[in-house]
Amino acid sequence: MNNSAKKITVSILGASGYSGAMALRILLRHPDVTVGKVFGTTAVGEKVHNLYPSLRGLTDMVYEEYASDKVADSEFIFLALPAGHAMNVVPEILESGKKVIDLSGDFRLKDPGLYKEYYKGDHSALSLLDSAIYGMPEINRKAIASTSLLSNPGCYPTSAIIPLAPLLKNNLIEPDDISISSLSGVSGAGRKSSVDLSFAEVDGSVKAYKVGDHQHIPEIESILSGEAKKDVTVNFVPHLLPAVRGIYTTTFTTPRKNVTSAQIEDAFHNAYADEPFVRHLGKQVPELKSVVGSNFIDIGWKLDKRTGKLIIFSAIDNLVKGAAGQAVQNMNIMSGFDEREGLL
Amino acid sequence: MNNSAKKITVSILGASGYSGAMALRILLRHPDVTVGKVFGTTAVGEKVHNLYPSLRGLTDMVYEEYASDKVADSEFIFLALPAGHAMNVVPEILESGKKVIDLSGDFRLKDPGLYKEYYKGDHSALSLLDSAIYGMPEINRKAIASTSLLSNPGCYPTSAIIPLAPLLKNNLIEPDDISISSLSGVSGAGRKSSVDLSFAEVDGSVKAYKVGDHQHIPEIESILSGEAKKDVTVNFVPHLLPAVRGIYTTTFTTPRKNVTSAQIEDAFHNAYADEPFVRHLGKQVPELKSVVGSNFIDIGWKLDKRTGKLIIFSAIDNLVKGAAGQAVQNMNIMSGFDEREGLL
Amino acid sequence: MNNSAKKITVSILGASGYSGAMALRILLRHPDVTVGKVFGTTAVGEKVHNLYPSLRGLTDMVYEEYASDKVADSEFIFLALPAGHAMNVVPEILESGKKVIDLSGDFRLKDPGLYKEYYKGDHSALSLLDSAIYGMPEINRKAIASTSLLSNPGCYPTSAIIPLAPLLKNNLIEPDDISISSLSGVSGAGRKSSVDLSFAEVDGSVKAYKVGDHQHIPEIESILSGEAKKDVTVNFVPHLLPAVRGIYTTTFTTPRKNVTSAQIEDAFHNAYADEPFVRHLGKQVPELKSVVGSNFIDIGWKLDKRTGKLIIFSAIDNLVKGAAGQAVQNMNIMSGFDEREGLL
Amino acid sequence: MNNSAKKITVSILGASGYSGAMALRILLRHPDVTVGKVFGTTAVGEKVHNLYPSLRGLTDMVYEEYASDKVADSEFIFLALPAGHAMNVVPEILESGKKVIDLSGDFRLKDPGLYKEYYKGDHSALSLLDSAIYGMPEINRKAIASTSLLSNPGCYPTSAIIPLAPLLKNNLIEPDDISISSLSGVSGAGRKSSVDLSFAEVDGSVKAYKVGDHQHIPEIESILSGEAKKDVTVNFVPHLLPAVRGIYTTTFTTPRKNVTSAQIEDAFHNAYADEPFVRHLGKQVPELKSVVGSNFIDIGWKLDKRTGKLIIFSAIDNLVKGAAGQAVQNMNIMSGFDEREGLL
Repeated sequence: MNNSAKKITVSILGASGYSGAMALRILLRHPDVTVGKVFGTTAVGEKVHNLYPSLRGLTDMVYEEYASDKVADSEFIFLALPAGHAMNVVPEILESGKKVIDLSGDFRLKDPGLYKEYYKGDHSALSLLDSAIYGMPEINRKAIASTSLLSNPGCYPTSAIIPLAPLLKNNLIEPDDISISSLSGVSGAGRKSSVDLSFAEVDGSVKAYKVGDHQHIPEIESILSGEAKKDVTVNFVPHLLPAVRGIYTTTFTTPRKNVTSAQIEDAFHNAYADEPFVRHLGKQVPELKSVVGSNFIDIGWKLDKRTGKLIIFSAIDNLVKGAAGQAVQNMNIMSGFDEREGLL
Repeated sequence: MNNSAKKITVSILGASGYSGAMALRILLRHPDVTVGKVFGTTAVGEKVHNLYPSLRGLTDMVYEEYASDKVADSEFIFLALPAGHAMNVVPEILESGKKVIDLSGDFRLKDPGLYKEYYKGDHSALSLLDSAIYGMPEINRKAIASTSLLSNPGCYPTSAIIPLAPLLKNNLIEPDDISISSLSGVSGAGRKSSVDLSFAEVDGSVKAYKVGDHQHIPEIESILSGEAKKDVTVNFVPHLLPAVRGIYTTTFTTPRKNVTSAQIEDAFHNAYADEPFVRHLGKQVPELKSVVGSNFIDIGWKLDKRTGKLIIFSAIDNLVKGAAGQAVQNMNIMSGFDEREGLL
Repeated sequence: MNNSAKKITVSILGASGYSGAMALRILLRHPDVTVGKVFGTTAVGEKVHNLYPSLRGLTDMVYEEYASDKVADSEFIFLALPAGHAMNVVPEILESGKKVIDLSGDFRLKDPGLYKEYYKGDHSALSLLDSAIYGMPEINRKAIASTSLLSNPGCYPTSAIIPLAPLLKNNLIEPDDISISSLSGVSGAGRKSSVDLSFAEVDGSVKAYKVGDHQHIPEIESILSGEAKKDVTVNFVPHLLPAVRGIYTTTFTTPRKNVTSAQIEDAFHNAYADEPFVRHLGKQVPELKSVVGSNFIDIGWKLDKRTGKLIIFSAIDNLVKGAAGQAVQNMNIMSGFDEREGLL
Repeated sequence: MNNSAKKITVSILGASGYSGAMALRILLRHPDVTVGKVFGTTAVGEKVHNLYPSLRGLTDMVYEEYASDKVADSEFIFLALPAGHAMNVVPEILESGKKVIDLSGDFRLKDPGLYKEYYKGDHSALSLLDSAIYGMPEINRKAIASTSLLSNPGCYPTSAIIPLAPLLKNNLIEPDDISISSLSGVSGAGRKSSVDLSFAEVDGSVKAYKVGDHQHIPEIESILSGEAKKDVTVNFVPHLLPAVRGIYTTTFTTPRKNVTSAQIEDAFHNAYADEPFVRHLGKQVPELKSVVGSNFIDIGWKLDKRTGKLIIFSAIDNLVKGAAGQAVQNMNIMSGFDEREGLL
């Protein structure tokens, strides 16, 4: 425990899903946190360890139905709700002076038109879109420290943006020729009953889905455009991998003329040498299992002289760096804790 | 194709589930069979290859809603319906002169009381219970040849009964001290949307279920009692295995006094040396993958002199020998075809 | 059995590996084939079913040490040897008047310089490089029919070339901006003892390997250049997938100016509507499990108007269409059998 | 960190294997431990994170060749060596006043004859066999606290002994009719290159091995005999499960006459209600994934009135409670730390 800090109380809405439960798991271990309440609409009245037996012995909490008076003593509210739900509760929570970390996509896009196009609905809290801060410490640490409304990045965007940001920022690659092929473990789809997600269908298979339509496309493009200070367009193809956890992203890019390996190496080094959760492997190729269970992102790359392409690899745990872990990292920054607290 | 036989027409009810679709797959390849119609309540109007893309190019059939006039030209009806449904259509089908192969548990138990206890419902075709023939060729080939109502064995019972039958028939093991631990691939639970069957829950895990309550217990006991000509009681513990297909069964038994390895070897040899789908491995231990995709059952065993127990291992593909393959084997017998036709 | 054809005798060198054993499996079922001998240096004297227990009951063959007199009565020799071995036995086999189907990479490249660069050794049968025919029926059927030295395509190239060939042939995509991301099941690495291929390392993981260095790169490029009648360059990134069988390939390409979906649709339709083992799904995305166990290749694609890219998906079973199945398809063509014999 | 305790220094021999690396992982997080040196014969000179990339960023240690002077400042030595190696280094380490935690089977059996029979070799440190303490806190906490030579239990024995001990101690089950069927994840076989452990062989399969011969049989029997104060004999069948981590054990036992569920419940409650790492689920069946990654053992059971058998289920992570976690639990006891330190 950070002795200079007093413990904060954190409650979680949507703690019955995989991301919310992972947030609970991490927060239970966090030396500076007391978990207040856990809410889960579909599991009201059930013990947490009935849904997540791995948590038996670590908590005796029971899922409750959310009501604002139940979180009166919470300083932080984690929202791990399905798309379109956070926007309905965030205004009231902010008004009561609490800080919000929203793990959904509700506050990631600044443009209501893009929101409507990709999330298929109208946004009910438009006035908050501008003040929400995108919570990726590697590019946005300072703004995170002072926000009350933290929009936690999507899993795919985390794996794609972190390696691409320094390349675009340093003008090393073309902004309009980026092709991203991502593989996600099944937990990325959430805790759902669905034939498509059943073991009998997923095991031994793989398939692409939502090709060119995925709601993470505008998120990736808008954040990268901000870093590049020009429009960035990406092709993005997600695939369902026969694994429970993790995202592995292979990205084909075109370096600008005369860009050298040394420049790429420098860009990554300068950007990330001091980042606590970025492991830059250089020419070594990452593998997925190295990051599963951790908040690390592993990055490797190869500049292929023969073809002229720069190919970049990145790996994260979708539930940790891609969701709950990054959320706690953000909470640490927002609270003045050591950024690694509870995450190593 | 068996030149002396004319082709028969076979239709399938419940062809949208895993067992029914596997029956379709096998029958499409069968040289003596024309597939008539396929029925599937939840998929009416859909092409078969929309549900089972592996069948694209092999059939253009469409799932229909069942009506008796649609099967007027079918000699055989395969029923791969959920428990409790076959009993409602069998009487009419039999009256129209067709032969039925029922893959469900509806006609496996002779005792309506046991049916009610284990299947939690009343039987609506009691008068047919006695005439239904249990379709396990290894113990019942003659009766199978002449029946019109074939009750196809359960998957777990197939894996348990075939190895135990010769031992009990020859009075080599105690009939009241049999402990069966079975591991089943997920497809055994059917094509279902369920959190419990999702990849994220099943992968990397294993668990027992329905301990002492499974509806296959009275099936195993009644068939084995018939073979032993005395009451047989079994402990039966099924487990969900992180695999798509197959059942692996480990059985602990107590040999009767002074029983030798040679006697056990003889019992298996005499019973099964000529069986086309039983592979007796003797002291070699079977492995599951050797039978996946085939109609074989592999059997191995060890008589442990130190402890006095006889431990038996058996492996089948739950969808083939444990369901559709055994059904086709039975159909071959009922039709006078070579028993292996379509199954090698 | 094709009644007009007499049975041919086929022997297999390297039948102890996964591809060779799969060839054996298919040939045992083939109505026009008698399997002669099976050779396997590392398994001499062992029964086939000791290495491949799934084949117990289907064959009693024993692995032998190869000697040319042992194949005197074989019309066809399948070579499923490690790289660099086929070239040493092919000359003698051809001289004795037999036909060869080589599943290795020894005769896939016409250019000895490329062979040396990517296979890291000198070629010992240079004079045969020109006469060897690349055995991909979809692009080369006529030449296949009359060759005695058939070089069977690599697994990755099969998945990449079949979808790209009609696009390049019809001048619909740029030949120098093709980025291929492929995922292969572990059996693609062969039957090997290696920590890297162990279940504990592979399960739940994924990683790229041999980025830009893989020996299948010159194979893909040279065949596609032939189809395009101009130089084709590809980026190729293979990944190890946590699955036993299958290859899933996602390819990013740039359509030439003003190319429409209809033109792409037509190109695929014209090329493949009559191909027995190509399933063109159009805008539907393939999934890996649909092809596992079959000789089909499934192809789907999407022209993304927003980004201007054409993204193509293809799936095969690496051991079947990617190796032994395609080899048998070629043998069927070379023998005048129905091309689908033994493969449906 | 326990403020009253000073940090101890711990070194690990065999830190390149799965158990040793897991010990390293846990100790790196342990607030009261400084890791001294890590030794690994097959990896001398390599960075730890080259073999275990998940540890990159957590340690920069390099594997060294063991020499006694390199551990001069270590209070504890963990030995995670292959069978037969610990006995050669333990005498010298003990003489130098250090404490040893041996994760191998070298010191688990008191009877040199049994050692020779099951481990196939002579024991070179017979004089230490008697003083070694079996490190299972649930049955042996007091003796653990004061030993210098701790023999850490085997993975299968941990899963079998903890649930059976209270039943035998309270004379509730017959000591000569216990049949144990265990399923182990592949990591239990160690970090090895072997065709049998390759993904292509293990995935989708399961098989029994070492039936009645496994070296954990005398360990289970001798410890349980001590608890029962009479001879206990067990049948034990291990199986290789298609999972990386964990052991799931299903045990069939015969209760003594008139034993009730309440007595069984009481036995477990009295033995384990206060144990920090035993989760007694009562009539609920455990599942493997609930314990993976933790030091917990989950226990459930069912008394089947119909058959008269008591069936017991237990689940552990083979690398944690079944190896490195239990080792650290023992180290905590031997050091006077909170027993849960570093393990929650």
